[in-house]
Amino acid sequence: MPAIGGVKLATAAAGIRYKGRTDVLLAVMDKGTAVAGVFTRSKCPSAPVEWCRSKLGRGGSSKAGFARALVVNSGNANAFTGKTGRAATTLTADIAAKALGCSPGEVFLASTGVIGEPLDASKFDGVLGAMAEKVAPGDWMNAARAIMTTDTFPKVATATVRLGKARVTINGMAKGAGMIAPDMATMLAFVFTDAPIAHAALQSLLKSAVEDTFNAVTIDGDTSTSDTLLAFATGAAAASGAPKINRASDPRLKAFTKAFRALLADLAEQVARDGEGARKLVEIIVDGAVSKASARRIAMSVANSPLVKTAIAGEDANWGRVVMAVGKAGEPANRDKLAISFNGIRVASRGARDPSYDEAAVSAAMKHPKIQIKIALGLGKGRDRVLTCDLTKEYVAINGDYRS
Amino acid sequence: MPAIGGVKLATAAAGIRYKGRTDVLLAVMDKGTAVAGVFTRSKCPSAPVEWCRSKLGRGGSSKAGFARALVVNSGNANAFTGKTGRAATTLTADIAAKALGCSPGEVFLASTGVIGEPLDASKFDGVLGAMAEKVAPGDWMNAARAIMTTDTFPKVATATVRLGKARVTINGMAKGAGMIAPDMATMLAFVFTDAPIAHAALQSLLKSAVEDTFNAVTIDGDTSTSDTLLAFATGAAAASGAPKINRASDPRLKAFTKAFRALLADLAEQVARDGEGARKLVEIIVDGAVSKASARRIAMSVANSPLVKTAIAGEDANWGRVVMAVGKAGEPANRDKLAISFNGIRVASRGARDPSYDEAAVSAAMKHPKIQIKIALGLGKGRDRVLTCDLTKEYVAINGDYRS
Repeated sequence: MPAIGGVKLATAAAGIRYKGRTDVLLAVMDKGTAVAGVFTRSKCPSAPVEWCRSKLGRGGSSKAGFARALVVNSGNANAFTGKTGRAATTLTADIAAKALGCSPGEVFLASTGVIGEPLDASKFDGVLGAMAEKVAPGDWMNAARAIMTTDTFPKVATATVRLGKARVTINGMAKGAGMIAPDMATMLAFVFTDAPIAHAALQSLLKSAVEDTFNAVTIDGDTSTSDTLLAFATGAAAASGAPKINRASDPRLKAFTKAFRALLADLAEQVARDGEGARKLVEIIVDGAVSKASARRIAMSVANSPLVKTAIAGEDANWGRVVMAVGKAGEPANRDKLAISFNGIRVASRGARDPSYDEAAVSAAMKHPKIQIKIALGLGKGRDRVLTCDLTKEYVAINGDYRS
Repeated sequence: MPAIGGVKLATAAAGIRYKGRTDVLLAVMDKGTAVAGVFTRSKCPSAPVEWCRSKLGRGGSSKAGFARALVVNSGNANAFTGKTGRAATTLTADIAAKALGCSPGEVFLASTGVIGEPLDASKFDGVLGAMAEKVAPGDWMNAARAIMTTDTFPKVATATVRLGKARVTINGMAKGAGMIAPDMATMLAFVFTDAPIAHAALQSLLKSAVEDTFNAVTIDGDTSTSDTLLAFATGAAAASGAPKINRASDPRLKAFTKAFRALLADLAEQVARDGEGARKLVEIIVDGAVSKASARRIAMSVANSPLVKTAIAGEDANWGRVVMAVGKAGEPANRDKLAISFNGIRVASRGARDPSYDEAAVSAAMKHPKIQIKIALGLGKGRDRVLTCDLTKEYVAINGDYRS
C-alpha cells in the first residue's frame, strides 16, 4: 500500500477488550481535508455514528465537511450506551483534539465490537498522545488489523488514477465479518485520497458508489448499529497539479469515479468473502426482473435465505430453495418463465428442472470456492447483483460464543 | 385423540422418497363437509397449492367449498415441477375420486418435501384403492406421523367445546420444522371438526385465527412454496343437536372460535418448538409500539435475526443484538425509551444497560428451554407476540445435508 499525501497513521493497544493486539487506529489528516460519510439506517445507531453525522455539515458550523483526525477502536461498539456513550464520544474527540491541536468537531470517530457495554474512553487518554507523536505515512496493513473484530484477514485496497494531469492515489480499508446487511452493509470502511475533492462532491460520489458495492453485500441480513463508511480527501495532490474538484459531475473526475467505485467494490467483496464462518463467496445475479429495484429485492431474498446458504455450505445445488426464495420476495415472478443456473450450468428452466440437468456436473461445480447463482426471470430488463457467503456451523459457533 | 364424526383416516407407505415409513395420508369425509383454506403467499406456489385454491370456490362450481377427501404425501413437495406437477395433481385427485366414488374437485391435496423433483403420482395408484377400503375413525398419531419430513415428533391437538346444546370436537395435526415464516407460516396443517359450519363461515374463522397463530411463527424467515392450512367441518354433530352455523359472527360460535384459535396456537407452538435443530422455544413480545402491525414487524425482525438466534443457542443474553434487530426493522423506535428483558429479568432500560443488571442472574435464566424476550418501546399501545426458536449448528447440518 502506497502512502497518501496528507495522511499519517498510528496504531496502539489500549486494552479496550482484546489482549495482546492493537485495538486503536489514529489517522491524522492535513488541514483542509474534506470528509464525507454514509452510515447505518438503523433506528438505534451507535454514539459514534451520531457523532459523525452531527459533524458532517448538519451542525451548520463553518468547519462542517472538514476533518483533521479519525479515531477508530475495536472491541466495543459504544452502541446503546445512553448518556455514557455520548459522553465517551465527546471525551475521545477532546483527547484527540488536544493531542493534535485541532477542534473536537474535526475529529471523526468509529467504534466496533460488543453492543451495550459502556466504553471507557479514558483508556484513550493513555494512548492518543503518544500516537499523535508517532504518526507516520504509514503501515496500512497494521491500520487495517487494528480495526478487526471477528475478521480473519485485514482488508485493504489501493488504486492510482489520473486526475487532470496529475496522478492521485486512493487507499481503503474495511472490517466486516458479521452483522452485515445493506443500508450501509455493516462494517467500518475508510477511504483516503490525496485528490483535491470538495466535501459536497465527495459526499455525492460516496453516496452513489455505495449503492452497488457495500449496499449490495449481505452476510446474515442483520444491520449493525455502527455501520460507517468515511471518505477523506486531503487535496495534497493539488501541489502536483491535480485540479480542485467541486462537483461530482465534473467530467475530469470520470476516471477517479470509476477507480473509487472499483475500490469500494473490492473492499465489499473482501467483506463478503470473510463473512463469519464463510467457506464460499456467493454471487447472486438476477436479470429479467421488472426493474433494478425488484431485481435487488429478489437477489437479497435469495442471499439472505438460511436454506439457500446452508445448501451452498453443503455443496448442494438445491435450486428448489432458490425458487422458494424468489417466491417469498413478493416481487413479480412467473414460475413458468424462471431459469436458474449455478456456476454457468443451467439447472432449471420454464418452471421445472432443465431437460439437460446433469447431477454430476452440477455437484462438481458446487465444490468451487466461488458460487454464482444466476436467476433469469424473463419479465423485463431489471438486473442486479448481490454478494453473500454460505452459512456454516462455524457461523453459529462464532456467534453463539462471541460475547462470553 | 378422539374420533371426529364424519372423518376416517388411513396411512400407507408409497415409497415416494422415504423407506420403511408411511408417507401418504388419506382422510375421507362424509358428504356435505365444508372446507376452508389459507395458503402460502409465495409467488411460486406448488402445484397442490394451486389445485386447492382452484377448488375453494374460485371455480364457481356448485360443489365449491365442499370436500370429500384429503390426500397428503411427504417426501416430495411437487413444487416447481411445471406441467408434470399439474398433471400429477390431476392424476392423484382422479385416483382418489375413483377409489371413493366422488368428484376429483372434492379431493384436496397437499405435498411436502423436496422442491423441483417430479412427483411420480402413479405411486398413489398402488396404494389409494387399498387405503380407501381400510379407512377408519382412526389413529390420529399415525396420520400426523405420515406427513412428517424433518419433524422430530408428530404434532396433534384436540379440543371439545359446546356449540348450542351439543358438544363438538376439533382435532388438528401439523408438520413443520424448516422453511417456516409468516404469510402462511410454512407447514402443512389440517383441522377437522364435526361442527356444522358452512364454508364461508369456516373460511372467515380460519383466516382470522391464523393471523396470531401460524402467521406469528417463524423458524428461519424462509417461506415455503407449499404452506397449506385446511379446515374441514363435517357437520356430523348436527345429529346430536349442534346448530348449523352460516356466519363466523354468529354469537353461538363464540366458545368454538376461542377453542379453534387455541388449537391453532397450540399446533403453531409445537411447530416452533420443533424448528430444525432447535433446542429452545423463543417468545418475542413487543409492546409500546405505535401499532400492532409495527410491533409485529419489530418482533419478526428480532425473531429472524441470525445473530439473536445464535446468541440464544449459546445461552448468551446478548441484548445488544436485540437492539440491533429493533433498529433494523425500520419501525418507529426511540433508543432512549427502549427496555428489554429476558425471562422477566430487565437487562436494558432507557437506552443503556439496566442499573440493576446482574450477569449471573441473566446467565442462569438463559439456560431455560423457553426464552421470553420482552421489548418495551414506550411509544404507544401496539403490542404483538411472535414465536421462534434458536439457531444451532444442527440447523446448518440438517439443511446442508437434506437433499443428498
